[in-house]
Amino acid sequence: MSNSPHGKLVVRAFTVSADGYGAGPDQNIDNPLGVGGMALHGWLVPTRTLQKSLFGKDGGTTGPDDDFAARAMANLGAWILGRNMFGPVRGPWPDESWKGWWGDEPPYHCDVFVLTHHPRAPITMKGGTVFHFITDGIESALQRARQAAGGKDIRLGGGVATIQQYLRAGHVDELHLAISPVLLGSGENLLGGIDMVRLGYKVTEHVATPAAMHLVLSKA
Amino acid sequence: MSNSPHGKLVVRAFTVSADGYGAGPDQNIDNPLGVGGMALHGWLVPTRTLQKSLFGKDGGTTGPDDDFAARAMANLGAWILGRNMFGPVRGPWPDESWKGWWGDEPPYHCDVFVLTHHPRAPITMKGGTVFHFITDGIESALQRARQAAGGKDIRLGGGVATIQQYLRAGHVDELHLAISPVLLGSGENLLGGIDMVRLGYKVTEHVATPAAMHLVLSKA
Repeated sequence: MSNSPHGKLVVRAFTVSADGYGAGPDQNIDNPLGVGGMALHGWLVPTRTLQKSLFGKDGGTTGPDDDFAARAMANLGAWILGRNMFGPVRGPWPDESWKGWWGDEPPYHCDVFVLTHHPRAPITMKGGTVFHFITDGIESALQRARQAAGGKDIRLGGGVATIQQYLRAGHVDELHLAISPVLLGSGENLLGGIDMVRLGYKVTEHVATPAAMHLVLSKA
Repeated sequence: MSNSPHGKLVVRAFTVSADGYGAGPDQNIDNPLGVGGMALHGWLVPTRTLQKSLFGKDGGTTGPDDDFAARAMANLGAWILGRNMFGPVRGPWPDESWKGWWGDEPPYHCDVFVLTHHPRAPITMKGGTVFHFITDGIESALQRARQAAGGKDIRLGGGVATIQQYLRAGHVDELHLAISPVLLGSGENLLGGIDMVRLGYKVTEHVATPAAMHLVLSKA
């Protein structure tokens, strides 16, 4: 790691169910968040920030949920995604056709580093998003992302397994977690197997809204 | 099970941390809820209901937290507790000296059925609480509790392992869960290993307060 000033590695607006799952079971092309996973985001979808950024619409809700939605997109210079966040394709890439869930102009507008075991050439999308495929591990992806971010923050988009790897390695500076009042029953449990206290995290911010319990977890 | 009308088997005011733990690690006589476990109950302790019932004091907070505290104690005819809820003693009872965490007059005021592998004579306490020790399993305890409750509800007080046994057996009619904005890091995870959706539970009520996210989970 260089000594140059750099941004934080952050997880933002990551939502889990009341029973702890960050995604539902059986992710596939019709259910990017697994079965039932969309219900998690009841706090996020109606916000002014998301309506504008994802659907290009004016309007939407304001207040604490929207404040967290806006903070989630602020000061980002790069993203890191696990492969399952990028798409439903598993194993070697059969061809170059899959370019993410988000259409021609993904909402990232910066370099996005996708963790995979299977090499693939970078893809330049409309609006400034470039997907890079990193095959040599989480440290390499972080290093590449820091170079690309130019001092801004790097957002770790998920999924659960990817966030857990970076948490265990001690790299995550801040995690904004939203707990939604829904049950998923099974899926990927974000914090169940991770001792966040032993890793040095504390709840440094807490806001309850009718739609979610927002917690910011930071190293003390 | 008889066909006579009877009350519900309920879990009330059961609190878990944001990372899913119903008690902290290392329960002992100084830490009945495990290390860090008392921090879970920040929503409950200041309420008017708890201040009155546990400390005999007037005053305390009112509002949704207090409403849930009051509902937790309403219409109860019997309790079921796992042995670790009753005390820190493990294995065969060395003598008759341990009579619970709660002093001479426990806050139950009815029959309390304690699950244990080690037989012991019932203990009659001040204020109407009688502790019965049940050695032949959860079904037997429930049957005894129904007889004692006389049509009122039976509250399953915990701990985590006991609640999980009754959930898996399909006996719990309603569970009021409070999620507190604290991290425990490790301990006993209430819902991590249980598929509440497959067991037929839904979120039927949801109230957010600054101190907790309250959820009522009921069979659909």
